[in-house]
Amino acid sequence: MNTIKYTLSEDHLPKTWYNIQADLPTPLPPVLHPQTHQPITPADLEPLFPQALIEQEVSQQRYIDIPSPVYDIYRQWRPTPLYRARRLEKALDTPAKIYYKYEGVSPTGSHKPNTAIPQAYYNKIEGVKRLTTETGAGQWGCSLALAGMFFDLDVEVYMVKVSYHQKPYRRAMMESYGAKVIASPSETTAAGREILAQYPDSTGSLGIAIGEAIEIAAQDSKTKYALGSVLNHVLLHQTVIGLEAIEQLKMAEDEPDIIIGCTGGGSNFAGLVFPFLGASLRGESQKPIKFMAVEPAACPTLTRGKYAYDFGDTAHLTPLVKMHTLGNSFVPEGFHAGGLRYHGMAPLISHLVQLGLIECSAYPQLSCFAAGLTFASSEGILPAPEANHAVRKAIDEALLCKEEGISRTILFNLCGHGHFDMQAYIDYQAGKLQDSEYNPQEIAMALAGLPSFE
Amino acid sequence: MNTIKYTLSEDHLPKTWYNIQADLPTPLPPVLHPQTHQPITPADLEPLFPQALIEQEVSQQRYIDIPSPVYDIYRQWRPTPLYRARRLEKALDTPAKIYYKYEGVSPTGSHKPNTAIPQAYYNKIEGVKRLTTETGAGQWGCSLALAGMFFDLDVEVYMVKVSYHQKPYRRAMMESYGAKVIASPSETTAAGREILAQYPDSTGSLGIAIGEAIEIAAQDSKTKYALGSVLNHVLLHQTVIGLEAIEQLKMAEDEPDIIIGCTGGGSNFAGLVFPFLGASLRGESQKPIKFMAVEPAACPTLTRGKYAYDFGDTAHLTPLVKMHTLGNSFVPEGFHAGGLRYHGMAPLISHLVQLGLIECSAYPQLSCFAAGLTFASSEGILPAPEANHAVRKAIDEALLCKEEGISRTILFNLCGHGHFDMQAYIDYQAGKLQDSEYNPQEIAMALAGLPSFE
Repeated sequence: MNTIKYTLSEDHLPKTWYNIQADLPTPLPPVLHPQTHQPITPADLEPLFPQALIEQEVSQQRYIDIPSPVYDIYRQWRPTPLYRARRLEKALDTPAKIYYKYEGVSPTGSHKPNTAIPQAYYNKIEGVKRLTTETGAGQWGCSLALAGMFFDLDVEVYMVKVSYHQKPYRRAMMESYGAKVIASPSETTAAGREILAQYPDSTGSLGIAIGEAIEIAAQDSKTKYALGSVLNHVLLHQTVIGLEAIEQLKMAEDEPDIIIGCTGGGSNFAGLVFPFLGASLRGESQKPIKFMAVEPAACPTLTRGKYAYDFGDTAHLTPLVKMHTLGNSFVPEGFHAGGLRYHGMAPLISHLVQLGLIECSAYPQLSCFAAGLTFASSEGILPAPEANHAVRKAIDEALLCKEEGISRTILFNLCGHGHFDMQAYIDYQAGKLQDSEYNPQEIAMALAGLPSFE
Repeated sequence: MNTIKYTLSEDHLPKTWYNIQADLPTPLPPVLHPQTHQPITPADLEPLFPQALIEQEVSQQRYIDIPSPVYDIYRQWRPTPLYRARRLEKALDTPAKIYYKYEGVSPTGSHKPNTAIPQAYYNKIEGVKRLTTETGAGQWGCSLALAGMFFDLDVEVYMVKVSYHQKPYRRAMMESYGAKVIASPSETTAAGREILAQYPDSTGSLGIAIGEAIEIAAQDSKTKYALGSVLNHVLLHQTVIGLEAIEQLKMAEDEPDIIIGCTGGGSNFAGLVFPFLGASLRGESQKPIKFMAVEPAACPTLTRGKYAYDFGDTAHLTPLVKMHTLGNSFVPEGFHAGGLRYHGMAPLISHLVQLGLIECSAYPQLSCFAAGLTFASSEGILPAPEANHAVRKAIDEALLCKEEGISRTILFNLCGHGHFDMQAYIDYQAGKLQDSEYNPQEIAMALAGLPSFE
């Protein structure tokens, strides 16, 4: 009864990404200009993004070619393995079949290079010299630093202050790849100075860091901005995960009943889920699939947020997008899954949740760490704290199968390893972590500050 | 010009290990009993090791079957990738072709599970309940903890004190896998207490930790001892690396001129080199190959040690083996490549060095960290500090090719990633690390204490 690996040969590395916009039953609500509240034009986005990514953001084409320089770098660690977790199944004594796609084999240990590489590539070929970005847990910052290094671009990373201090090793990795790392909120931007004036002890948030990174990018035509999640083109690039998983499940002669991913901005979830969900929307699935998004109880965007137009950042520099949001001024507690601390959610995922196509739930962190250790003790891989949310849900669904005496096929995304997160595990095992619940009053206040035209 | 991955399909995962003892031009000198100085018998080793491993230790059989429960676990991450480092070649502007075998994809991030898994397996089937061991950098301890978890064995790890404090995250990982970790020298053993009485501030050494682990194992018939390097059976298990690499170089239609590995106890070096060296000894190589062992200048066993009978531990509990040694009382400075701090060397490697079949060199740590960053900046993977010694040598050989205008094919073992070693990189980049050279007087003193019958 051992764990089985499904290795896809390199000839089966997908040649295209999958764009779910081609298969949506109703189109995405338009993105609005922050001042005029009118639908934005490509020209509005040009200061921040290269043409190719702006086109991908709105493209309705179902499959989009992966450029060969990107493909050649993907090949360094892709296709990633798909595993059948038979040791975990045995430990849980469940009739369920549990599969996981493992993205921790990338050089930075997570799924983030899947989009960092093409983003750096498209910027490079359009003459950009420098990229700015934000990072929470540091996985995205490391990945953009890596990609910038491959394509000879300067990279400046605004790192959420709580993670900057909690995760010095992630910072060291970015610096090893040649990036400059700044704790956010910082004194280097107007947005950062404003926050610090009001809250000198601010531990930061992704919304603040995004505002800082955008402010810098907007000042210089050779500097653009890169986002690690949320946007359509980011989710698009991650679909290489699900496209591979479809082929690998064919090798296993199996079809999923349930597909699970953790959600912060939504990119690893979308990466695994969208290719399956697209097939389902086109009526090509053999059986109905439940798609399950799992978020932290301390930042419950999908389960406690409002579906409304909001800014992507705290400084109100981004366009307005319709999404599930806790309000752009919401700053979650400094819990350990730093990659899941965003106030908003990818508009594509929010839209699909509104259409009733995705189920959402929120879990407190202690039960997620417990699940991570259960997983490690049978599968041997210690997951990142973010990924533990998906592990928790997969285990709970498998235990439900046991209770009901039904075998279901469960697939989840193990989006990264926890080798950079050992302090969180030390704190958990020492009993130092608590379940920081969301504060309903703070969310209500943040939501009250949403743009008023809604 | 991108890095190329040679992926071996799972059908090509070797079914056997390769035993170089079958091909040695002259046999290994016998292992001697610590008291009688007579060749030991299998019965002498029974308190410490299971029968199957004692048999492998002396076997003259060329190929030894990998048991299927071991094979099934290997399959979780093996075959590991072989890469052609074309981005590094380009950065160095060298005519050399550089290949590296990457063992960092295992659950613990190094090559160590290759032997931890079979060791735990053989102990389990012979009824053992508990394993004791030592660990330097923590890679071996993590791997035995992982293996113990898979086969339901208790694991107790004596961790060299300097690493115990430098690497709390490795310790946390062992504990996450359910192992008990004790800083060595400790008060729990007579050997540890004796050292502490004499040197209360001892930072420990592998030799001391081995003595402690052996003492505990010898006291209880259900407890055995596991060693992470040095012994013949450990090197045997690692040959899966080289056997895969042979197949992968065939895919690349290439043959190596130079094969490089770093050496502490010798296991990752042997794992890559022995299958190639064996073919060479049998006259089956197409062209002559240089085999190069690289050790740290601060613990220069092969380049400054004596080829003599010595104990494997400081407490003189192990049998006497003929090897290159700095003397069992030698305690190297607490430099960062904790996995390379052993006073001795695998007898098989020592023997082959004596036969003139392996070239040896020693490098100070700063130049190795510099090489590691050069490697990371082109290949994207940040190596473990141990592996940086092999990277340094590979880069130097590639630069020599450039100087001489000759293209050679260089293969090296990238035995682990550096995700647990970021503090070392932070210290290096902050200019806090120094080149701690060996102290000739200390070595002379330690060598003076070698068993006198030599």
